[in-house]
Amino acid sequence: MILLSVGSSSSSQIAAIFSVTLLLFYFSEATLGSPCPIDGLPIVRNISELPQDSYGIPGLTHMTVAGSVLHGMKEVEIWLQTFAPGAATPIHRHSCEEVFVVLKGSGTLYLAETHGSFPGKPVEFPIFANSTLHVPINDAHQVKNTGNEDLQVLVTISRPPIKIFTYDDWFMPHTAAKLKFPFFWDEQCFQESQKDEL
Amino acid sequence: MILLSVGSSSSSQIAAIFSVTLLLFYFSEATLGSPCPIDGLPIVRNISELPQDSYGIPGLTHMTVAGSVLHGMKEVEIWLQTFAPGAATPIHRHSCEEVFVVLKGSGTLYLAETHGSFPGKPVEFPIFANSTLHVPINDAHQVKNTGNEDLQVLVTISRPPIKIFTYDDWFMPHTAAKLKFPFFWDEQCFQESQKDEL
Repeated sequence: MILLSVGSSSSSQIAAIFSVTLLLFYFSEATLGSPCPIDGLPIVRNISELPQDSYGIPGLTHMTVAGSVLHGMKEVEIWLQTFAPGAATPIHRHSCEEVFVVLKGSGTLYLAETHGSFPGKPVEFPIFANSTLHVPINDAHQVKNTGNEDLQVLVTISRPPIKIFTYDDWFMPHTAAKLKFPFFWDEQCFQESQKDEL
Repeated sequence: MILLSVGSSSSSQIAAIFSVTLLLFYFSEATLGSPCPIDGLPIVRNISELPQDSYGIPGLTHMTVAGSVLHGMKEVEIWLQTFAPGAATPIHRHSCEEVFVVLKGSGTLYLAETHGSFPGKPVEFPIFANSTLHVPINDAHQVKNTGNEDLQVLVTISRPPIKIFTYDDWFMPHTAAKLKFPFFWDEQCFQESQKDEL
């Protein structure tokens, strides 16, 4: 819309028509199931109609139920994730709070509670349907479906969008962990939200 | 533990024994299902073993799955709530983000979207199993089970513990809404956490 404020009269008219067309396109996209529906977000949404993807993590189905980049949340973000048997998150850490509620299945939380220069051998916590777990801020961890059926979890994080540092193994130094930001499920809409601000 | 640093030698010994006893009692309480287990909180907990109560709201069963006053969360808080048919939250507002995930049943979200000096007649949004809803910050709202079976929701809020302003009806001025803080389910542990700091 910046175009409207500069240029000659005729180019302003063209710019105005162009901008309005863009705006109409944007709003129709936003309300008709765009992957980045940050404006015109309905108050109530059917979770089964939300986009879902593995985002390159084998055996994962991720859905952002209420997100920062996708939906304009400022302080919390909610994910619904399903891990097939054997599927796991990367070994990773983040400086936000994270709470899981296990809806279905079972698995293991691997949590490195030591505070040296690398995560070290993790402690194993069995997780199960109707359990809740919290991950202490900045502790390296991994959630894995070590059971025989799908593991489904509802995850809440604070301070979205998430900034994740990933480790190749439990003995990689913290300083060598790689920042992945925006994370895979935020990539597409993060780019679009950046464009919006140009 | 302040007792240990004052008094004569013999009274110090008594005080030390007394303090250690208190401390042991405190830790055993914390790990064996105390209502305020903020210290020694296990990483994984069985939700079905958590305390639950109506907290004076007819037809409500509330459980704090991961909370600020109860469990030491700083940025997010998670509740599991079940509303019997006809049960409802008060009409209320709060300045934090709130996201619901409906696990079972159906109901209605009443949401006052106008921004005058009082909430006014609310818009009604049907909510249903597998839906998600977010409440815009500071909008007066009420969730009610208008169905025939239990309505079960998992609720995430930001910036806990929650500060709730309640309304007698939709036409009560915002300035007359009553602050209830700490909210009913935080009362017991809020008092204890205050005592801890004395």
